[in-house]
Amino acid sequence: MTEQLPISSDDARTNAPLKYAKTETFEGPIALERGDHLPKVEVVYETYGQLNAVKDNAVMVCHALTGDSHIVAHDENDDPGWWEIMVGPGKPIDTDKYFVICSNVLGSCRGTTGPGSINPATNKPYGKDFPLITIGDMVDVQKRLLDRLEIEKLFAVVGASLGGHQALCWATKYPDRVGAIAAIATGPTLTSQALAFDVVGRNAITLDPNFHDGQYYDKETKPNTGLAIARMLGHITYLSRESMRDKFDNNRLEPRAVDTEFEKHFSISSYLAYQGDKFVERFDANSYVVISLAMDHFNLGNTHEQLAESIGKSGCRWLIMSFSSDWLFPPFQAKQMRNALISRGKYVSYCNIKSDCGHDAFLLPNEFERYGGIVRGFLDTTTVDATFADVDVNQLPQDVKSIFHNKRLDYDQICGLIEKNSSVLDLGCGQGGLLMQLARQREASRLVGIELDEANLQAAIQLGFDVIQSDLEKGVPMFGNGEFDYVVLSQTLQSVVHTEQLVEQMVRIGKKCIVSFPNFAYKDLRNELYHEGVSPGTEHGQLSFEWFNTPNRRFLSIKDWEDFCKQKGVVIHDAVCLNSETGERVADDPNLNADLAIYVISK
Amino acid sequence: MTEQLPISSDDARTNAPLKYAKTETFEGPIALERGDHLPKVEVVYETYGQLNAVKDNAVMVCHALTGDSHIVAHDENDDPGWWEIMVGPGKPIDTDKYFVICSNVLGSCRGTTGPGSINPATNKPYGKDFPLITIGDMVDVQKRLLDRLEIEKLFAVVGASLGGHQALCWATKYPDRVGAIAAIATGPTLTSQALAFDVVGRNAITLDPNFHDGQYYDKETKPNTGLAIARMLGHITYLSRESMRDKFDNNRLEPRAVDTEFEKHFSISSYLAYQGDKFVERFDANSYVVISLAMDHFNLGNTHEQLAESIGKSGCRWLIMSFSSDWLFPPFQAKQMRNALISRGKYVSYCNIKSDCGHDAFLLPNEFERYGGIVRGFLDTTTVDATFADVDVNQLPQDVKSIFHNKRLDYDQICGLIEKNSSVLDLGCGQGGLLMQLARQREASRLVGIELDEANLQAAIQLGFDVIQSDLEKGVPMFGNGEFDYVVLSQTLQSVVHTEQLVEQMVRIGKKCIVSFPNFAYKDLRNELYHEGVSPGTEHGQLSFEWFNTPNRRFLSIKDWEDFCKQKGVVIHDAVCLNSETGERVADDPNLNADLAIYVISK
Repeated sequence: MTEQLPISSDDARTNAPLKYAKTETFEGPIALERGDHLPKVEVVYETYGQLNAVKDNAVMVCHALTGDSHIVAHDENDDPGWWEIMVGPGKPIDTDKYFVICSNVLGSCRGTTGPGSINPATNKPYGKDFPLITIGDMVDVQKRLLDRLEIEKLFAVVGASLGGHQALCWATKYPDRVGAIAAIATGPTLTSQALAFDVVGRNAITLDPNFHDGQYYDKETKPNTGLAIARMLGHITYLSRESMRDKFDNNRLEPRAVDTEFEKHFSISSYLAYQGDKFVERFDANSYVVISLAMDHFNLGNTHEQLAESIGKSGCRWLIMSFSSDWLFPPFQAKQMRNALISRGKYVSYCNIKSDCGHDAFLLPNEFERYGGIVRGFLDTTTVDATFADVDVNQLPQDVKSIFHNKRLDYDQICGLIEKNSSVLDLGCGQGGLLMQLARQREASRLVGIELDEANLQAAIQLGFDVIQSDLEKGVPMFGNGEFDYVVLSQTLQSVVHTEQLVEQMVRIGKKCIVSFPNFAYKDLRNELYHEGVSPGTEHGQLSFEWFNTPNRRFLSIKDWEDFCKQKGVVIHDAVCLNSETGERVADDPNLNADLAIYVISK
Repeated sequence: MTEQLPISSDDARTNAPLKYAKTETFEGPIALERGDHLPKVEVVYETYGQLNAVKDNAVMVCHALTGDSHIVAHDENDDPGWWEIMVGPGKPIDTDKYFVICSNVLGSCRGTTGPGSINPATNKPYGKDFPLITIGDMVDVQKRLLDRLEIEKLFAVVGASLGGHQALCWATKYPDRVGAIAAIATGPTLTSQALAFDVVGRNAITLDPNFHDGQYYDKETKPNTGLAIARMLGHITYLSRESMRDKFDNNRLEPRAVDTEFEKHFSISSYLAYQGDKFVERFDANSYVVISLAMDHFNLGNTHEQLAESIGKSGCRWLIMSFSSDWLFPPFQAKQMRNALISRGKYVSYCNIKSDCGHDAFLLPNEFERYGGIVRGFLDTTTVDATFADVDVNQLPQDVKSIFHNKRLDYDQICGLIEKNSSVLDLGCGQGGLLMQLARQREASRLVGIELDEANLQAAIQLGFDVIQSDLEKGVPMFGNGEFDYVVLSQTLQSVVHTEQLVEQMVRIGKKCIVSFPNFAYKDLRNELYHEGVSPGTEHGQLSFEWFNTPNRRFLSIKDWEDFCKQKGVVIHDAVCLNSETGERVADDPNLNADLAIYVISK
């Protein structure tokens, strides 16, 4: 009596027939990357939406290890697919706009040629004779499909997990044929820890006495115990410690009534047993071995230099996204890719979505509003060139951060200091307010933002900017020397603890840098400390914070700043000192009479 | 041809005979916690050092899942044991001082009665008839051994991992029979994630066709495949992602020439194969199932309240230690125990050792200097009552933190403000300087420190204080309301960002609190900002830092502080305002003329 158990990511997947799947056949010999050949390859795929006349709206969605071509239901009578939340009319990958293609990967058991397919040479299933394939081989089959469909260039490739590996492979193997890549919950290679779990899973399969060296297709009993154990193990890596805690900690000793040979001591035991038993009904052990080996061999480089070299071949716009609790593809791997792309001058947005859902987060609705919104914004603005002038400024998000007054007096000044057609990196770009002002007024050539807050980042990406999530306290990402005409740090200097590091990195990356900050030697503040004996800018003053809760950590004057620049060998090109109440420039003793300073500096 | 592979924690363990092991037999029926009985129990144990005449120097060391009684070699011809670094003459658990006992756990295959032992009822090995045992049953056998050795009370119990569970069980089941507990790399229960790995490992064993429902002892082939897979899996959880990266990332595709049935595609494959194959030579599958189930059922409580209730039964001094990269028993579990102990007023030291070595860190030399030193300090001072007067102050570590001058002028003042025989909590105790001054001058009743830095913490624990590692920015640990006569925060207020939270928690925990801080409205500092227009306390001033690198984050004056106290309803009982240059008290306008302030406050 199988009771309904807690539902995880891909529980909805079944081995139901794919009613809308199409098949293309490629006669061989088909060369594989490791030198083997396949006599013939059949590929099963599904499509959604309409390919437009110029064929430039095709989005390839790549599925994960045990997925298939069925992303979403084609109609209300169709079975649900594995990414219903992401793909469809009005969804982030909007089938009203895009022609979405998803093909089952080479090596699978869900239609495309795999170890269970008939080997024309023997008229029996390949079994152990199926060659060792690579992610590149999977992508090659997809490319053949594109050729058959006469699509010259993909608008985008979107993939998570193993699907992310395919997306990365597209970008590096066929850089001319893809316009944008969204690589989600993936990495340039597996960590040794993640690899180790695959090794143990495969050992459980291949040493199952029913595996028969892969030639079990004509046997009554399949290597189901081994495959189930591999699946249980995989399943643990798809969840996070936090999500397992939430599911199982409070009912630890309440196993469900699952009809299984496996252990049922704990509720987690019955859950894993259920997952294992269900999986063997729909998946083939040889396919699991072949696909996981392809994944385990994928490697864009062990070092930053190697990764930058391989990823440097790409010519597309990038979105790199990870999930904070994903330990199968930990966020540091996404950051490695981000750094490699940045170091090669690629156009990239990056976000590590805060989530408790682990690797499976990409399939779940929990944080979907945020990461779905970022994917939508990324895709929808990838074709937008210089349309910023059309943006209704009244619709722009409010981005109010001023220390002194609730308006960004410094924005106008900063815009005035930047020459037309300049490239600009805005550190702490918020929701993209300054970038938008620059885009509309200064015809900027390249506009990139750095932002820590996820919601701000989402808003700025949806405006069409490349935005990289990063904590300035941990340093500016690894852009090249002089990569931007201007690097801007507006009203942030005073709240950063690692001041020296930040300024050093700014002047390395920017040909020029613009820094605005409040002047804590402004006369009103001097008077407060001198005459009243209170911390400048407490409730007695004109700052809106008190000494114990102000976000400011550094209290500098214009003189302090100029001394600092001198000490650090930083050249001052220009300075605008303002009285923020009147909005006027202060010429007479700015360190006394100005409360806001804007400096143009360089190395 | 088995080549030497990278060595991990317990690779040194073999199934060599235990030359120095002794055996005690207890005739039954022996009652078990779950209601079953064993007709007889034999326990194998080893001892090191000499039991003193009053029998109060016995330390019980509890081994982990697959360990045994052989902690260290007894002589130079003896095989090495599993904790050579920790136990021996002059080692942290010093056999020149302590009589160390280690007994093999119930259920094991290393001498003590387990599923492979002969069941007197059948004259065959128990196999599946061996009952489901608990950690409590293991401890009960140890207690019988103690009774036999006529030891009334253990000086201490030390254990890591499953050994930590036994230590926790000693403290809660037999609180009168143990003086101190060092619980290392353990938790009040397994996380659901850790539990899940055990479940999969047991499934691999019990569904191995050679398991024969546990009755395999007379068969030629043992369930070695399943046991090896369980071991591989366990092994991954003993290492950390970082340690696996360091071992395997750079030689990923270079498997060693291991003679094995298991996968050898990757270097990690051959490593795991080697570990699995080696393990089955020395361990019994039924023992693995029985002991891991006992571990998985161990639970001191799912909530803080439950844990505080169970741990509240203890009457010993505690040392709780975790390792930062341990993901089998993640540091948050140690913190849960720390919080439960603190909330019940127990005497506890706590440290999360920074380490890349994962769970196995407790067996490895990498961070041993630090954690071994803490264990040594904890044990060696557990018997020290009021011997602080003997300490040579010239030997005390220098603890120089003063903001203004390189001496702790405020220490003398603070000591003077504290009544004799008071209990004191020192927030940010450093190496224990103020606590030692109090211990020597004020005959304090209970002295506890909070400290973030590991080296400082080690020094302070070695002086004999209970010291809890904690970041004050994240709040003060959960001591009871008014638990201390005094809570002290010396020269730290100005570098803490979460000021309000900290002060609120201080006045909750302390009947009175003493706060010392530099006065940023001191006349010299006022002059600097007013006349020179530079940030008070830059290089121009008398502070030794500049505006961009000072550790200070909050710049308050005496007036600011008094206003703050008023606003928060904090009562000021006393204030000492000093000129730190002259060392004299300032009566005339302290906010102008004093640079150092010490306040006694309460709720």
